[in-house]
Amino acid sequence: MTTAAREERPASAGRERLHAAALRLFAEHGVSGTSLQMIADEVGVTKAAVYHHYKTKDELVVGVIDPFLDRVAGIVERAHARRGWRAQAEAALSGLVDLIVDVRRLYVVAVTDPVAVHLQEQHPRLRVVAGELRGLLAGPDADDERRIDVAFFLAGLVGPLGDPQTFHVPDEDLRAHLLDLGRRFLLGRRR
Amino acid sequence: MTTAAREERPASAGRERLHAAALRLFAEHGVSGTSLQMIADEVGVTKAAVYHHYKTKDELVVGVIDPFLDRVAGIVERAHARRGWRAQAEAALSGLVDLIVDVRRLYVVAVTDPVAVHLQEQHPRLRVVAGELRGLLAGPDADDERRIDVAFFLAGLVGPLGDPQTFHVPDEDLRAHLLDLGRRFLLGRRR
Repeated sequence: MTTAAREERPASAGRERLHAAALRLFAEHGVSGTSLQMIADEVGVTKAAVYHHYKTKDELVVGVIDPFLDRVAGIVERAHARRGWRAQAEAALSGLVDLIVDVRRLYVVAVTDPVAVHLQEQHPRLRVVAGELRGLLAGPDADDERRIDVAFFLAGLVGPLGDPQTFHVPDEDLRAHLLDLGRRFLLGRRR
Repeated sequence: MTTAAREERPASAGRERLHAAALRLFAEHGVSGTSLQMIADEVGVTKAAVYHHYKTKDELVVGVIDPFLDRVAGIVERAHARRGWRAQAEAALSGLVDLIVDVRRLYVVAVTDPVAVHLQEQHPRLRVVAGELRGLLAGPDADDERRIDVAFFLAGLVGPLGDPQTFHVPDEDLRAHLLDLGRRFLLGRRR
């Protein structure tokens, strides 16, 4: 291990704790209702320790969403490597379902919080990756109806993640059912 | 017109303007990020004029959601008057689609904003009406998969309402497509 890597480790671990605490607070109070001070309190550090990583809350929100974005970018890349629309859409769908079951709370915040949504609209990389994912799911020659279906599907995934009635469903069962649901809903029409 | 009715008119008109301004701000900043002062500024009145109607922001949020809830309660009542699950679900579905196309922004806030969602969980009437609507759409003997489908459907409706790619779709077309989508998705499985 190099000295640089050794020095990075604590900063990175601190950042992960910040992200986890920020997400818990975002999910409960919304991004708008969460201050850097609240995040510092939740982690049990000073506000200065938060400032060490992020100067503004907007930077923090983008920092929280970035690792999620890296994974979406990976899904898009692997899907594009497949041949034909159906195989690409299937790869995009299963990658997305795996990801969101893994990061339930983050997906809910990224898709529904008005501040998070607004930041993504201003963030060029977020727009590109989200647009590519939507394009893969919609397929070539998508019309308005198809775009409505895809917007419906991406928002719909939030429902079971945030619904207390389905909290008890184990990850494996939720993943299997969302994948089946996506295939029926998005791929069934093209059969 | 009685004196009482004449006196109520301005207060009621003022309340509707408050609700509309609050919704615009909630949609942009989230409930947490919106203060009573911001709402007063948006309407062009003093904060005291807002306090005349609502003492706290929580009261205001419930006041904004209440008329929406009255309409959901009406939908549930009319659906229950039908015979058989499919006819009931069809009535609930078409009533819901009509309603949300009519109040796009309100539905997005009511379903996605963490503060609004939290308030609804604490509000007995909201819980009952929302539970009845979910029950009508899920049908008798709903299992976990069916509950996931319904949660998915209710959240999914938010997608096309909030997606800039589909903003240009006229209300009539959006209503027709969401109704078709709901029939395919929620009623198709039971055919």
